[in-house]
Amino acid sequence: MAEIQKLMAEIYLERDRRRGAERTLIWMLSEAGEVADAFLKRSDEDLRSEVADLLAWLLSFCNVVGIDLEEAILAKYGRGCPLCKSKPCRCPIR
Amino acid sequence: MAEIQKLMAEIYLERDRRRGAERTLIWMLSEAGEVADAFLKRSDEDLRSEVADLLAWLLSFCNVVGIDLEEAILAKYGRGCPLCKSKPCRCPIR
Repeated sequence: MAEIQKLMAEIYLERDRRRGAERTLIWMLSEAGEVADAFLKRSDEDLRSEVADLLAWLLSFCNVVGIDLEEAILAKYGRGCPLCKSKPCRCPIR
Repeated sequence: MAEIQKLMAEIYLERDRRRGAERTLIWMLSEAGEVADAFLKRSDEDLRSEVADLLAWLLSFCNVVGIDLEEAILAKYGRGCPLCKSKPCRCPIR
């Protein structure tokens, strides 16, 4: 994960910084919509490509705002569900 | 990344499967909105928490639909920008 975030920085950080956090976030939100679109169209190949794009834009956004995404997810989920504190999660299904 | 996807499966896969791909995707989209919300409110701590949640739901969604997210992102971005084929990316800024 940390290596993938670094790879994204190598490819995109300079451009992401020039574009700025706000427009990078809008791109990320647009990619979330494209995941939904590929899902509704039942295209497995497009869905793989769109989840990759969403992660790429999420990492670009994290790079611009200075968040280590691996650190952030492990801090919150590393010991199991942050709500019920167990693994597997025992919260009611929503 | 693969280890984090496995961790999310250990915590959530059974519940995610019972909830189903459609509702899991709706949760993921809702988390993308929460990232935007934390960004607009300029809360660094909330932003760290929300990007972690978005990744967690993206991984839950990938687990339910059977996509290996690390494999998907490396297949698309492993050799640099998929559009201009270079690293760093030389595409015009959008």
